[in-house]
Amino acid sequence: MRLEELRKLVYQANIDLVDLGLVTLTWGNVSGLDKESGIVAIKPSGVDYKDLAPENLVLVDLAGNRVEGDLNPSSDTPTHLELYRAFDRIAGVAHTHSDYAGMFAQARLAIPCLGTTHADHFNGEVPLTRMITQEEVEADYEGNTGKVIVERFERIDPQEMPAVLVAAHGAFAWGSSPERAVINSLALEKTAKMAWGTLSLAPEVPPFPEYLLRKHYQRKHGPQAYYGQKTGEQK
Amino acid sequence: MRLEELRKLVYQANIDLVDLGLVTLTWGNVSGLDKESGIVAIKPSGVDYKDLAPENLVLVDLAGNRVEGDLNPSSDTPTHLELYRAFDRIAGVAHTHSDYAGMFAQARLAIPCLGTTHADHFNGEVPLTRMITQEEVEADYEGNTGKVIVERFERIDPQEMPAVLVAAHGAFAWGSSPERAVINSLALEKTAKMAWGTLSLAPEVPPFPEYLLRKHYQRKHGPQAYYGQKTGEQK
Amino acid sequence: MRLEELRKLVYQANIDLVDLGLVTLTWGNVSGLDKESGIVAIKPSGVDYKDLAPENLVLVDLAGNRVEGDLNPSSDTPTHLELYRAFDRIAGVAHTHSDYAGMFAQARLAIPCLGTTHADHFNGEVPLTRMITQEEVEADYEGNTGKVIVERFERIDPQEMPAVLVAAHGAFAWGSSPERAVINSLALEKTAKMAWGTLSLAPEVPPFPEYLLRKHYQRKHGPQAYYGQKTGEQK
Amino acid sequence: MRLEELRKLVYQANIDLVDLGLVTLTWGNVSGLDKESGIVAIKPSGVDYKDLAPENLVLVDLAGNRVEGDLNPSSDTPTHLELYRAFDRIAGVAHTHSDYAGMFAQARLAIPCLGTTHADHFNGEVPLTRMITQEEVEADYEGNTGKVIVERFERIDPQEMPAVLVAAHGAFAWGSSPERAVINSLALEKTAKMAWGTLSLAPEVPPFPEYLLRKHYQRKHGPQAYYGQKTGEQK
Repeated sequence: MRLEELRKLVYQANIDLVDLGLVTLTWGNVSGLDKESGIVAIKPSGVDYKDLAPENLVLVDLAGNRVEGDLNPSSDTPTHLELYRAFDRIAGVAHTHSDYAGMFAQARLAIPCLGTTHADHFNGEVPLTRMITQEEVEADYEGNTGKVIVERFERIDPQEMPAVLVAAHGAFAWGSSPERAVINSLALEKTAKMAWGTLSLAPEVPPFPEYLLRKHYQRKHGPQAYYGQKTGEQK
Repeated sequence: MRLEELRKLVYQANIDLVDLGLVTLTWGNVSGLDKESGIVAIKPSGVDYKDLAPENLVLVDLAGNRVEGDLNPSSDTPTHLELYRAFDRIAGVAHTHSDYAGMFAQARLAIPCLGTTHADHFNGEVPLTRMITQEEVEADYEGNTGKVIVERFERIDPQEMPAVLVAAHGAFAWGSSPERAVINSLALEKTAKMAWGTLSLAPEVPPFPEYLLRKHYQRKHGPQAYYGQKTGEQK
Repeated sequence: MRLEELRKLVYQANIDLVDLGLVTLTWGNVSGLDKESGIVAIKPSGVDYKDLAPENLVLVDLAGNRVEGDLNPSSDTPTHLELYRAFDRIAGVAHTHSDYAGMFAQARLAIPCLGTTHADHFNGEVPLTRMITQEEVEADYEGNTGKVIVERFERIDPQEMPAVLVAAHGAFAWGSSPERAVINSLALEKTAKMAWGTLSLAPEVPPFPEYLLRKHYQRKHGPQAYYGQKTGEQK
Repeated sequence: MRLEELRKLVYQANIDLVDLGLVTLTWGNVSGLDKESGIVAIKPSGVDYKDLAPENLVLVDLAGNRVEGDLNPSSDTPTHLELYRAFDRIAGVAHTHSDYAGMFAQARLAIPCLGTTHADHFNGEVPLTRMITQEEVEADYEGNTGKVIVERFERIDPQEMPAVLVAAHGAFAWGSSPERAVINSLALEKTAKMAWGTLSLAPEVPPFPEYLLRKHYQRKHGPQAYYGQKTGEQK
């Protein structure tokens, strides 16, 4: 993929994130990785979405060195890079403070799987990280945010669980492209909203049966997936 | 009805479902039946709504054989067909994971009738199916989802109750046309939202009086209906 | 006022009610009274808002006789007429099933005055009617709905309280014009939403002080009102 | 700054407040101060936003004398002026009755800091004023509303806390320009919504750690701020 193409994809994904109502002010960003060159394009920090253009995205390598662009990259860049380095099959990351995912993150609660809407996208509860420590904050806040996420995924496959809640912070979602990262952010927000309302109606809702979780997840994402067209659904 | 006309009606109903905010991503679909020929038009599986066109809808017969179209029909097609076979006066079915109907489905609660808004559309509480079993999921998930709905309607008239919540899943609504199925999906979602908020204000709300349910339902749908114009209101 | 002008005002008020998000499907209507001639223009029953035009509004006199128009007037017409006959200074009535006002009506709770937003529009809690009886429903449902409202206002000035919740039904609001009735419907819905959320945060919220209610209501509506411009604010 | 320029900025900020969904009807207003001349431009009282224009804004001096304009200034003008006189680094004030901030104000609760979204904008809980007394209401309601806010900020730096909830009333936010006051109003509303939902999920949510509040606030607003571009983020 040429870097010009990467800029366009990442630009469009950032715009989509806003148009979908997942971002207020500048509270969010999407990046994309060109796997061949190991170059990441990301939103510049604190720039209004209305001033965003493919040309003012910032390009960095996976070690965080700025390769192209005059602006500072998003202050969350080290978190994104940590995820690209640890989750080797992803090529897009989105960060949001969307309303309902944010409520669960602030409440320090994972999002339980309560129905097929959730199961279609996330293979089980969406995990919550532990709280980042004072030492981690002081040493390298954004890098350590990434490490805390990766730590949480020690026994979770990031292909089957393309999102996480960072305690008292917000959400990160990822996928095989910047566009997929945005789609997963939207699925996360809708899933969170429905879980929030379900819990208010029925605080003691019975657990979602394992066989239905497996079925829904597999029919969309498994080797015998039959949801969608022949090309299959990408994560 | 010519099949070209059926394609247009079903296409428009799918677009309306999205425009009304009842569908996120590809989480929903509408089908329509041409009663003369027994042909059903339905949304192709996993196709983005922006790429949808009357031409790429899939046509199947009531036994599920594909009659026209290169794409796979919605993975929910067997559920739709089960409903058309069992409920012989309907000609449109809509499936959604809309927010508030979804919350009740996930909470495993029927939607109680709490006011005239509900009574204008649904003759009593909107029923909840039982949970589908592991055996049913493994044998024929989507077909059995339809059978579980039909089982729930053993003593309910689908003309008087044009919607159902599938436990831990979402909603199906139906009617005399694809358009009516969409209208009933919207009435269901609004009714669910109002019930959700009512229960949060007054968990012990007194039951809605039977005489008012009967009055509201009958003035709109009964033989002496006087709501609307001479042509009457269709379900 | 010429009746052509009345048709335009009532048409626009109906459209505004929809555009403000206060109406789903055909669940709402606005009427307007020409005080000189005693003629009321009202929405025809069950007609889609997209098909509404000043020409297809129905004109009736205060006794309910159709004066102009081929369509049936809204089935709620007898309720509107009851209000015009009892509240002699009003010239517009709006009926909605808007979400949050509807939740309070369904929960059978008046909307308590909890803040200045409420006090700016409603001089105290927005009252709830008693439940209509079976006899009243069977004899003359819509007319008796109006009578139940009027009964509730026996000791309330409809100028100071331009809205009511009908138990298990929805809201009626009124004012000096169809436009004012719509504005009061919107104020009611917003007030209801804020009260709903306030009660979820603080079920035991202390009462709003009488001196602040008086101040806010009077600065906008009293004889020494100083809110707005010289022409004053109409109710 | 020329006063023509001030009119444009204040006009645009008022329009933005509406477009962001923070204002219903005429329930809100923004003012701006030209520090050189000590002139404040503010929305006229009770004027519909659709009729607003830079030309019909009202100009007053810091003592409240009308300098330009035929219309009455917003009835909240004395509150705005009190804030400009007491908080000497601000040049914009916005007043709203936005939904979720309004719910906290009505519930008489400060907005606790529960996550980084809040910490990015507000250095700790957003304070609630005491209830204004009957004497204060009768003597000079709007001026005393400003004094009650200023009293609440005796030990709070208005630069670090650019918003307040007035008990049983609504919100005021401010900043270095009318535009910043609007941005802070939006951040307040979103923060309030997330806090509201968080508390409904987890009434006993653990406190947000002080070290994370400090970090987030400082990386955006402190002397070593590294969020945004070189020009820094203004408050």
